[in-house]
Amino acid sequence: MTYAIARPDQGIAAALQQRIDTKTKPLGALGRLEALARQIGLIQQTLSPALREPHMLVFAGDHGAARAGVSAYPQDVTWQMVENFLAGGAAINVFARQMGMGLTVVDAGVAHDFGTRPGLVNAKVAPGTANYLEEPAMSAAQRDAALTRGRELAQNLAANGCTVVGFGEMGIGNTAAASLLTHCLTGAELNGVIGRGTGHDDAGMERKRALLARAIARGGRPADPLAALAEYGGFEIAMMAGAMLGAAEAKMVLLIDGFIVTSALLVAHALAPEILDYCVFAHRSNEAGHVVQLARLGIEPLVQLDLRLGEGTGAALAYPLVQAAVNFMNEMASFESAGVAGKA
Amino acid sequence: MTYAIARPDQGIAAALQQRIDTKTKPLGALGRLEALARQIGLIQQTLSPALREPHMLVFAGDHGAARAGVSAYPQDVTWQMVENFLAGGAAINVFARQMGMGLTVVDAGVAHDFGTRPGLVNAKVAPGTANYLEEPAMSAAQRDAALTRGRELAQNLAANGCTVVGFGEMGIGNTAAASLLTHCLTGAELNGVIGRGTGHDDAGMERKRALLARAIARGGRPADPLAALAEYGGFEIAMMAGAMLGAAEAKMVLLIDGFIVTSALLVAHALAPEILDYCVFAHRSNEAGHVVQLARLGIEPLVQLDLRLGEGTGAALAYPLVQAAVNFMNEMASFESAGVAGKA
Repeated sequence: MTYAIARPDQGIAAALQQRIDTKTKPLGALGRLEALARQIGLIQQTLSPALREPHMLVFAGDHGAARAGVSAYPQDVTWQMVENFLAGGAAINVFARQMGMGLTVVDAGVAHDFGTRPGLVNAKVAPGTANYLEEPAMSAAQRDAALTRGRELAQNLAANGCTVVGFGEMGIGNTAAASLLTHCLTGAELNGVIGRGTGHDDAGMERKRALLARAIARGGRPADPLAALAEYGGFEIAMMAGAMLGAAEAKMVLLIDGFIVTSALLVAHALAPEILDYCVFAHRSNEAGHVVQLARLGIEPLVQLDLRLGEGTGAALAYPLVQAAVNFMNEMASFESAGVAGKA
Repeated sequence: MTYAIARPDQGIAAALQQRIDTKTKPLGALGRLEALARQIGLIQQTLSPALREPHMLVFAGDHGAARAGVSAYPQDVTWQMVENFLAGGAAINVFARQMGMGLTVVDAGVAHDFGTRPGLVNAKVAPGTANYLEEPAMSAAQRDAALTRGRELAQNLAANGCTVVGFGEMGIGNTAAASLLTHCLTGAELNGVIGRGTGHDDAGMERKRALLARAIARGGRPADPLAALAEYGGFEIAMMAGAMLGAAEAKMVLLIDGFIVTSALLVAHALAPEILDYCVFAHRSNEAGHVVQLARLGIEPLVQLDLRLGEGTGAALAYPLVQAAVNFMNEMASFESAGVAGKA
């Protein structure tokens, strides 16, 4: 598979800056919102950018290694939380509602049969990955199916007029998978990218570290993104990576959440580095590996709120800032139109 | 004047924490939003807090010292920007609209006659302060009138059902006044709290530093908040301090913006330290003195977006995070209600 992500044409950059600089405010006074406005103007190739049909895609999947104890929570919590999403009671439901974002839950590979349900896309590759302590998490065919299905999901959103998409996830054990992928794709030491996840105590952390070291001893440390994804990934991570690539191909604005979402982005970025031009990094989470990922990508996210929840909550919470960047571009008066004098 | 600000009763604290901890998320995973939810629950003494009739108060005033060159912009920009506010074209208009906040512009002392205008409260103490390079900026009577009028404004908002109020300002020369007040009230060196304001170049900074040193040489460095306010304050700063005190008396949530707003809070805090229990600090601005103020108060604000615009823009931009804290408390399912298993 190849991905056709174009770098935005910079021809409009000077006109964007001119429009920002004539707004009734000191030069540069809106700080990071000005950088966001430039970025979105470049992505959409317009001086009047618009965020239409904002949507959160929450990918869920189970991990074979979860039963070995990489998580503090039992594996059933994955499907139970999917039910919570479908009932509207999880944090991501609350925040997506508040921000006026649509929400679709994608069953990329949960070990549970949900039947046909409103708000749920059945894209199950298999009922959970294999246990990477014993064998690769997924086959190359499963991986490619997940990537392709994700890309289609993004294409469908784009066809429905969506220009901004947030990424979230649910999967007991997926911080462990994210740690392994980050170790493979960034060159960082394994222990430096393993965190407490949903809340390991010291003994749990000790066990998680030992298990992940065993995984690497078995499967090695592939630097190739597709090989690493098959070896350690989750179906939710693989499908999300495909959706990110498809969203950037469709010139959408991508809202990147925390540690697990960024592990999917590391895969997408290794396949098509141009994707970064389309990404807004929402927040710095409290998961140690996220800091490493962001440093590797050279990114300073918009906010830091000590979140470590996942689901896409950070992406949803930062979305009003992205809206604010677009709104000031479209709605603020210029010095000339408002009759305000410039600098003395 | 004495202010009757009560510290919130802590009796409800354990029940608030219990409600937060039973939500379907790992313990503490919503980070700073959890602290916000606790704070607002304490302020309102309820497990189901509510943000009603959110409102921005933008105080405007002119400074006698502006004509001496403490600002990079001409003094007329104050009234021109008030006109921009009234026409809906400034950054604070855009952001308040986006966030669903009401907006009132308060003429605390602009050197311009606006007549009677919708959205503008005429609370003019005088058409600009005196020049603190030559004499105190205002008399004790003017200062007390400004404080009293501000308190009344907050009482009126409370009477209209408002439970959350953001503070903003406009006044050419008011970063200089904020620097002088911060110097008086924090013990910080003068040059450490002088910044570029709306955009001084190096020569402008040099001039600003020299002028403010002359002001201190004339008026001294009163540590008493009321004395410092009369000596160097602006009418917009004094009236805002009164409004902050009145808002805390009325048990409202106060959204604190950047450097100038925090200089008003320094005055209010010196008069009634309990006010801090009611304050949400929105953002860390790029103005050097703001960092000093926040350190003095022991505060880590919610976001840092390299803003240096004022008007209350940072307070408006952070408001969705405050809403999110209240919404997760009220809308998220509990582990029990959602049928989700806890930690293994």
